[in-house]
Amino acid sequence: MGTSPEGAANRTYAIIGTGAVGGFYGARLQKAGYTVHFLLNSDCEYVRDRGLVVESPYGDFTLPQVNAYCDVRDMPRCDVVVVALKATRNELLPELLPPVVKETGAVLLLQNGWDAEPEAAKILSSEVEKGLALMGGLAFLCSNKTAPGHIRHVDYSEITIAEYASDYRPCGITEKMLEIKSDFESAGIPMELREDLLEARWQKLVWNIPYNGLSVVLDARTDELMADPDTRYLLEELMREVVAGAAALGRVIPESFMRKMLDRTETMKPYLTSMKLDFDNKRPLEVEAIFGNPLRAATSAGAKLPQIEMLYRQLKFLDSGCNSG
Amino acid sequence: MGTSPEGAANRTYAIIGTGAVGGFYGARLQKAGYTVHFLLNSDCEYVRDRGLVVESPYGDFTLPQVNAYCDVRDMPRCDVVVVALKATRNELLPELLPPVVKETGAVLLLQNGWDAEPEAAKILSSEVEKGLALMGGLAFLCSNKTAPGHIRHVDYSEITIAEYASDYRPCGITEKMLEIKSDFESAGIPMELREDLLEARWQKLVWNIPYNGLSVVLDARTDELMADPDTRYLLEELMREVVAGAAALGRVIPESFMRKMLDRTETMKPYLTSMKLDFDNKRPLEVEAIFGNPLRAATSAGAKLPQIEMLYRQLKFLDSGCNSG
Repeated sequence: MGTSPEGAANRTYAIIGTGAVGGFYGARLQKAGYTVHFLLNSDCEYVRDRGLVVESPYGDFTLPQVNAYCDVRDMPRCDVVVVALKATRNELLPELLPPVVKETGAVLLLQNGWDAEPEAAKILSSEVEKGLALMGGLAFLCSNKTAPGHIRHVDYSEITIAEYASDYRPCGITEKMLEIKSDFESAGIPMELREDLLEARWQKLVWNIPYNGLSVVLDARTDELMADPDTRYLLEELMREVVAGAAALGRVIPESFMRKMLDRTETMKPYLTSMKLDFDNKRPLEVEAIFGNPLRAATSAGAKLPQIEMLYRQLKFLDSGCNSG
Repeated sequence: MGTSPEGAANRTYAIIGTGAVGGFYGARLQKAGYTVHFLLNSDCEYVRDRGLVVESPYGDFTLPQVNAYCDVRDMPRCDVVVVALKATRNELLPELLPPVVKETGAVLLLQNGWDAEPEAAKILSSEVEKGLALMGGLAFLCSNKTAPGHIRHVDYSEITIAEYASDYRPCGITEKMLEIKSDFESAGIPMELREDLLEARWQKLVWNIPYNGLSVVLDARTDELMADPDTRYLLEELMREVVAGAAALGRVIPESFMRKMLDRTETMKPYLTSMKLDFDNKRPLEVEAIFGNPLRAATSAGAKLPQIEMLYRQLKFLDSGCNSG
């Protein structure tokens, strides 16, 4: 399992956004012996006093004591800064990132969607020049926050990461990526390293666009979307449009990958997508991160994605809250 | 206003399906002096005993006594048979039409959508050979049935009619069309005569497809769809696909017609579409009549209508009732 527990103590981690995603991974890292600093928002006082609870098929555990912060300016600079905010909160990045990064370290944007990396590169341009690595991460994870400081992990946990360079040009497997992989795997989290972040992001959209979008618009679980022949057809059509969008940007996603996503969802437990949970809880939807930004990028590269565009606009209408329902 | 009241007595009318549409027009005809026979379903006994009540901006009125039938076999043959069933009930046509038509008369299918005329032509092939005229009609009408025998007419009432010949080939303005127009106009209902039924049906779809479809999927009124920039954009995109579908079948719908539909809806009172009312009342949706049949016809003629197809499949999913909502 990679690094020994002694090695574990070496790298420090900051978790920016301690929800269902950041809370789960940060807790696993701390449990594996790493020093982790958690930035929280509404649950800050609660978690500082009572710690974190994780329910998980990998084993339940409690961390009665965690380093919890309400203000990023109180945090120490960390070797690896994991951003696990919802993409809808990314307007906070200029305020949250500079105080906590190390020039010798790494920032991992563990978020849905797209377009956060160029933003972060701008915010941290001088640090990046001096050696800070910027990475994008894609978590394949079913996890919910059920109460303050209480995370219910349902299934899966793999993370895919890749390093970012300007214009999303592929930049290979770096030493820092290997170190982070080693840390996560010693915490029991499988991690895949990729040479091309843009390709990885578009692959994730193959799942995210059809399932998140249709689950909200049609008020449906993943298993219901799979069982009905019309929505099953739409899922595949939408996946094909994602593949066409990726192709317009020079990234080839094979048919077999689509099949894998369908098969994987077939065998998943009935599941509400993250966007559906956001919608039901009247939280803002990640509609630009998952739909708008990739759609615009692919469209300017010449792709025509009419069904994704329709879903995007349906979601924006629902997200605006201006319907009578 | 055309025919004199004495002339009015000459032609007899059968209304097959006495709901918000058939009930309104039939009651206006009877009030104007025509002999009208109403076929009813659930409200049959009630209306036989108590008649019909119409609330309308054109003037409220009550018909304490109407010719109400629970069984089509009890009805006399009528000069003009107006079919105002929901298109979802058209499997009843083989049973309902033959007993009530006259070979010298006319059948007017006053329904949403598409594909009922070829069906009716098959059912009545021998009568059509002997001179029965088959017509399609499009009602632009906001009207609801609010209680048994009680119709609330909200706005508009125009009807467009055209005669049907096989393969929807245009067949001009006929004598019978002029007679029916004269009858309806003496009952205060404006009627437009058209030479080409297929063109008229596709024009109606320019409104029906975007507004009916999006109102159900997004749980929205017409005014909400018009006010939001994203749904406004989608309405226009969907209209453009309807125009493309019509073009594939050789019918040209000018841009100005789209504008007219948008402007007209802009000034309409906030309105729930008929499909939305059906959906909210858990009635089957006219999804094949309005979406499936035209989509298949246009697609076999070579059109690509991805956004209409998506809306069609979303509606089928919702109509199947298999979502969790």
